[in-house]
Amino acid sequence: MAKELKFVMLLDCYGDLLTEHQRSVMELYYCEDLSLAEIGAPLGITRQAVRSLIKRTEDILLNYEEKLGFADRLEKMRQCFGNLSQAAEDINDNTLKKTITDEINIGLGLL
Amino acid sequence: MAKELKFVMLLDCYGDLLTEHQRSVMELYYCEDLSLAEIGAPLGITRQAVRSLIKRTEDILLNYEEKLGFADRLEKMRQCFGNLSQAAEDINDNTLKKTITDEINIGLGLL
Repeated sequence: MAKELKFVMLLDCYGDLLTEHQRSVMELYYCEDLSLAEIGAPLGITRQAVRSLIKRTEDILLNYEEKLGFADRLEKMRQCFGNLSQAAEDINDNTLKKTITDEINIGLGLL
Repeated sequence: MAKELKFVMLLDCYGDLLTEHQRSVMELYYCEDLSLAEIGAPLGITRQAVRSLIKRTEDILLNYEEKLGFADRLEKMRQCFGNLSQAAEDINDNTLKKTITDEINIGLGLL
């Protein structure tokens, strides 16, 4: 099971829809980079049980993304604001540049 | 029960997480503006049963928004792109203006 950045993004997007247990195990695995054995030990469950819980939770997250697509949209939005930010560098009028840059930063803050 | 624009937005955001029945009744009520009686008749259910189904589905949608907040973020993003679009009008360099406007339109297309 490869530890993919995709699941970190999906957790960030839909983590609040998981149970506390699902979320905590996923965060230990994907964000804290603990092994299956390290996650299982304090919970008193086997590596295999942890692996199975992670797989089920991945499926839940993938299902949310398939239906809602927010992670993909937010990622594309991030690229969009990045491109805007780069283009705004070339604006000569400093007041206008500041207005536009401030607004881009507001948008980035919403991601 | 007031027919609020809020629920049209929440349906747009989270409608794919509802059952087909829940979604269809909500769309008839909030988007097609049918009355409770008009919705109930072809389904063979009472006004009261329709009202109760709508109320339960509203709670589901509100719960998703409370946990994920995407409808609110997308609305603020819309305002942000609107402000950017207005500010971009004042860019003198036409090539730069087009680059920035095109990028804003890409962002708007993601909402």
